Amino acid sequence: MSAPILHGGGITEAAARYGGRLEDWLDLSTGINPCPVALPPVPERAWHRLPDRQTVDDARLAAAVYYRTNGVLPLPVPGTQSVIQLLPRLMQFNAAAEPRSGSRVALFGPTYGEYARVLAAAGFSVDPVEDASAIEPGHGLAIIVNPNNPTGRSFRPADILAIAARLKANGGALLVDEAFGDLEPELSVAGHVREQGNLVVFRSFGKFFGLAGLRLGFVVAPEPVLAAFAEWLGPWAVSGPALTVSKALMQGDTKAIAAGILERRAGLDAVLDGAGMTRIGGTGLFVLVEHRHAVRLHEALCAAHILTRKFDYAPTWLRIGLAPDAEGDRRLADALCRMER
Amino acid sequence: MSAPILHGGGITEAAARYGGRLEDWLDLSTGINPCPVALPPVPERAWHRLPDRQTVDDARLAAAVYYRTNGVLPLPVPGTQSVIQLLPRLMQFNAAAEPRSGSRVALFGPTYGEYARVLAAAGFSVDPVEDASAIEPGHGLAIIVNPNNPTGRSFRPADILAIAARLKANGGALLVDEAFGDLEPELSVAGHVREQGNLVVFRSFGKFFGLAGLRLGFVVAPEPVLAAFAEWLGPWAVSGPALTVSKALMQGDTKAIAAGILERRAGLDAVLDGAGMTRIGGTGLFVLVEHRHAVRLHEALCAAHILTRKFDYAPTWLRIGLAPDAEGDRRLADALCRMER
Repeated sequence: MSAPILHGGGITEAAARYGGRLEDWLDLSTGINPCPVALPPVPERAWHRLPDRQTVDDARLAAAVYYRTNGVLPLPVPGTQSVIQLLPRLMQFNAAAEPRSGSRVALFGPTYGEYARVLAAAGFSVDPVEDASAIEPGHGLAIIVNPNNPTGRSFRPADILAIAARLKANGGALLVDEAFGDLEPELSVAGHVREQGNLVVFRSFGKFFGLAGLRLGFVVAPEPVLAAFAEWLGPWAVSGPALTVSKALMQGDTKAIAAGILERRAGLDAVLDGAGMTRIGGTGLFVLVEHRHAVRLHEALCAAHILTRKFDYAPTWLRIGLAPDAEGDRRLADALCRMER
Repeated sequence: MSAPILHGGGITEAAARYGGRLEDWLDLSTGINPCPVALPPVPERAWHRLPDRQTVDDARLAAAVYYRTNGVLPLPVPGTQSVIQLLPRLMQFNAAAEPRSGSRVALFGPTYGEYARVLAAAGFSVDPVEDASAIEPGHGLAIIVNPNNPTGRSFRPADILAIAARLKANGGALLVDEAFGDLEPELSVAGHVREQGNLVVFRSFGKFFGLAGLRLGFVVAPEPVLAAFAEWLGPWAVSGPALTVSKALMQGDTKAIAAGILERRAGLDAVLDGAGMTRIGGTGLFVLVEHRHAVRLHEALCAAHILTRKFDYAPTWLRIGLAPDAEGDRRLADALCRMER
């Protein structure tokens, strides 16, 4: 069993170490919209009954429109993590479908740590790559997070499709994780899945809508891959409330949600710039800061009961998420101001 | 890919075939409490944030008390089905831990169809067995649903522990699915898991509490098995609302819930007896009826927009769940009365 990764969101542990009541901490350690959208009413039926075909189909149709999939009905899954866990099976599935498919994985990084952890634990070689030229015939799967977490690096769809085409020539597949893609729909390749044939797209519902506790993601992929994921997850993998809430919200005013996030992001930028911090990347939902003493900065913020995200592999990086309001911005500004830099 | 099993709960399909509005159907095809418990308030945090350590630990502690596990902290999972999907990995895990463990599965049946489907699809031989004498050294895993679905057959804990001991001698494990066990806590072996060492217990949250849409179950097992399941499911497998709701309800008035179910069950018995039906088994949440023309009976009830559960493998069986109220009982009684028998 591989060592667990230290993710954001560990407020309980942080409060145990640095003191303070849970509710008094300012959690900037995740990339989740800090202003959760108002929940649409959840019918009693959604809690009570197993999710029926109609409920699932309704959510899939709403997701097809929202993610602009060109007719592919996305598969709802209980969080993107649940399908990351299934990537070792996808490797075997691809190898069975495409006898020439390689058994190594090319991971565009540095990126979200769970990809390397899950695949390495299952015995696959994971090669960190920085650009398309590093992809070799032995790579049965390449993984791109677009835009990337935590760097914010983004790939244009044309470049992604070129990488997919290159992998296809050797029986390989390309997985694009668009978990932070809602604010930049022009980057998405979800609409190219059907024509491309070896492209799999993961979408995360909870980050943009601020409902990470719901545990919901969607997979956009060719039909055989969707059928395989559905089979591996088994029936009723997603909760009824997640299906009904997501349908309503994807059909609602998503532009207002995006505007709210960008306003919060502007607030964060102003605080960081005011404190003389160096922003080196990010997405709409977080900023990546470079700082000579990022670990010390992390600790000093913890002492002020503000949790950010540090990285073992990059000791000069700090990822800072959005505060829920201007008061949160001020609190961060004050804490940064009081520190020696 | 194996063919999907026709489960209960297919109201959408039934309405498409037999007509009627969804909300006008009486769904007696599942084994779910038809009177869902009032939902405790779900804090905004549970929807918004990834479930944190404290939320998970609170639910585990409540489950340890409710399921009387003698100190084992049950692992919350997104529905029992999610861990049935992982049984092929458990087989490999057991074989690795216990070199003598066999590669065949003994399934006490007939029972819930997903066990045979998932294990056979992964290439394991599944031997249907009726009693303990059929267990052989080649069986690395035996599976008992207690009380059983759909027959209602129940095993005494002493007999189950004897089977577990027998399997242990050959490096095998025993899985006991207590999905319908809430009404008969004296049947549970959840309190014996730690001392027994090769015993795994699955519990279902949604059936008894009438909240199947929540997707929640618990695994009670020795620590290495719990750690393996947790690793295979990955972080944040269960939704925040499921964790907070279950904690509150398991600590609430479960006796009142049981009394409500037994009252509804008495109503169903009276209807069936009044119609001269032969009850051959069941649990608190459903009755198994034997009828020479069970398939025709199923269709006639569908024509009255009442959905029950038939079985391909037992054409004389019909499983009938609880109606939500006396009005539902009367509707079933009327439909049975109007039929030729």
